[in-house]
Amino acid sequence: MKRLIERIAQLQNPSVVGLDSLLDYIPQHIKEEKFAQYGDTFDAAAQAILAYNKEIIDAICDIVPAVKPQAAYYEMYSWQGMWALCETVKYAQEKGMIVIMDGKRNDIGSTMQAYAKAHLGVSEVNGKELSAFGSDMLTVNGYLGSDGIEPLLPICDEKDKGIFVLVKTSNPSSGELQDQKIGDKSIYETMGAMCEQWGEKTQNSYGYSRVGAVVGATYPQQLSEMRQKMPHTFFLVPGYGAQGGQGKDLVHFFNEDGLGAIVNSSRGIIAAYKQEKYARFGEENFGDASRAAVEDMIADIDGALKAAK
Amino acid sequence: MKRLIERIAQLQNPSVVGLDSLLDYIPQHIKEEKFAQYGDTFDAAAQAILAYNKEIIDAICDIVPAVKPQAAYYEMYSWQGMWALCETVKYAQEKGMIVIMDGKRNDIGSTMQAYAKAHLGVSEVNGKELSAFGSDMLTVNGYLGSDGIEPLLPICDEKDKGIFVLVKTSNPSSGELQDQKIGDKSIYETMGAMCEQWGEKTQNSYGYSRVGAVVGATYPQQLSEMRQKMPHTFFLVPGYGAQGGQGKDLVHFFNEDGLGAIVNSSRGIIAAYKQEKYARFGEENFGDASRAAVEDMIADIDGALKAAK
Repeated sequence: MKRLIERIAQLQNPSVVGLDSLLDYIPQHIKEEKFAQYGDTFDAAAQAILAYNKEIIDAICDIVPAVKPQAAYYEMYSWQGMWALCETVKYAQEKGMIVIMDGKRNDIGSTMQAYAKAHLGVSEVNGKELSAFGSDMLTVNGYLGSDGIEPLLPICDEKDKGIFVLVKTSNPSSGELQDQKIGDKSIYETMGAMCEQWGEKTQNSYGYSRVGAVVGATYPQQLSEMRQKMPHTFFLVPGYGAQGGQGKDLVHFFNEDGLGAIVNSSRGIIAAYKQEKYARFGEENFGDASRAAVEDMIADIDGALKAAK
Repeated sequence: MKRLIERIAQLQNPSVVGLDSLLDYIPQHIKEEKFAQYGDTFDAAAQAILAYNKEIIDAICDIVPAVKPQAAYYEMYSWQGMWALCETVKYAQEKGMIVIMDGKRNDIGSTMQAYAKAHLGVSEVNGKELSAFGSDMLTVNGYLGSDGIEPLLPICDEKDKGIFVLVKTSNPSSGELQDQKIGDKSIYETMGAMCEQWGEKTQNSYGYSRVGAVVGATYPQQLSEMRQKMPHTFFLVPGYGAQGGQGKDLVHFFNEDGLGAIVNSSRGIIAAYKQEKYARFGEENFGDASRAAVEDMIADIDGALKAAK
């Protein structure tokens, strides 16, 4: 979390680009090349995704602190897709980016520890420690309680990693369960309080713990109070852009130090070349379109934060 | 769910074997062979896991209806581990077994659809439909509400597949959130009611829907009432054996038709050869030890069900 904060401060950009790398988003020239070389196979899909991700990373790595690959879009291309995921993580890190694996993993005890090893730690093979996916941070689901979160914490401490727990998600039906009241507290508030507690012993010099929270940009009203109640919890905010969240909605997620949140945009950045607004770049130069979209997003968030001061 | 029920009835065995295939469980002779051939690499780990799984599947496939690979234990060996997972699913299905992927996956909209394609459906690559992991059923986490479950349902219908939603998990801290009361109903009861609702339109001729529920064997008291309140929901019951659940605790999970639940045991079966009770088989014959442990589990559950009548 400290590394993330420092990278955000350095680049003056509290945003993360979601690598939801659907084949539909990938420009034709990349797909044609890979299908020609590997046939209509998962190998071709994996190669196309990796080539696409690399070009986007190249185009944005000096202005964006982090990327957030969405595991589902790699898993759907089987183990070959998972190879592309693994290579994407490595490449982004080589380029100085923090990688937040959006896996929403959850389980208990030694099984959760296996997920922690898979995504944040190392796995032992015959006495040798090897890194499996080697991300910097992982999104997790806390429905199973402390048994599902605590196995992550020693690995986070040891390897200097962090997690984001789902608290209030950005989707329309998130309220079905998350908004229900336990006494006078909603479920998402209860989950938020658990995040503060899980993170308690891991605060860094900026006052934030290794345990962050996912809170959707689509519910700004409900969540500005969350910001106050969870002072040590960094927020990962999905729902900006394509899901309807705007810069002005985001001001509530930040603390007075200008920190406290990182805002995600996926499709709006990685498939920017498909938008009329960025069509001038042309499909071949999709990386430049993504960079322009990032610059617009930075200006939008920055403007909103300044306006709120 | 219908296929699962018919296989349970055919084999007269309502149990599933969890393939939590840790390297620690794998007999030395398999590991030595693979490490010698592939070095201390993820390839070696993946090859060892697959060889181990195949031998266990061979030993039990005519007496056990289903296997449940735990995705975390494959993911921790990176994409090579995911390859072993993929091959394990195929092998088990070739041997007539139903495969329940224990992934506890969760997300919303098109991302959840990607998980559905990954594990239950097919993914399109340049117009060609390919199966990624191709399981029969998938465990999922419903914290995100209907947006996280509904994307699965059309794929379940179309491909004749099913899901199990986490309702009340078997771990000690499951109560932290799941037992909290929303009005006069606990969160797990609320989740249970949502399962009944999600499954409503998908009931088969046995009266069970495509939407099952995970309910831990470690909480028999609380859950016998769940059985009554969720008449159309098939239960996947973890926590038997190593986690402390016993045959006599399980009677509450079954309906009067003798159906309604499938009980999981992992370590107790796949690492049976390490128990004193089955040491007579020797490490080389670990498959025979697993088969003997399955037979004992069947007798335990069967005895308890008969005693309850």
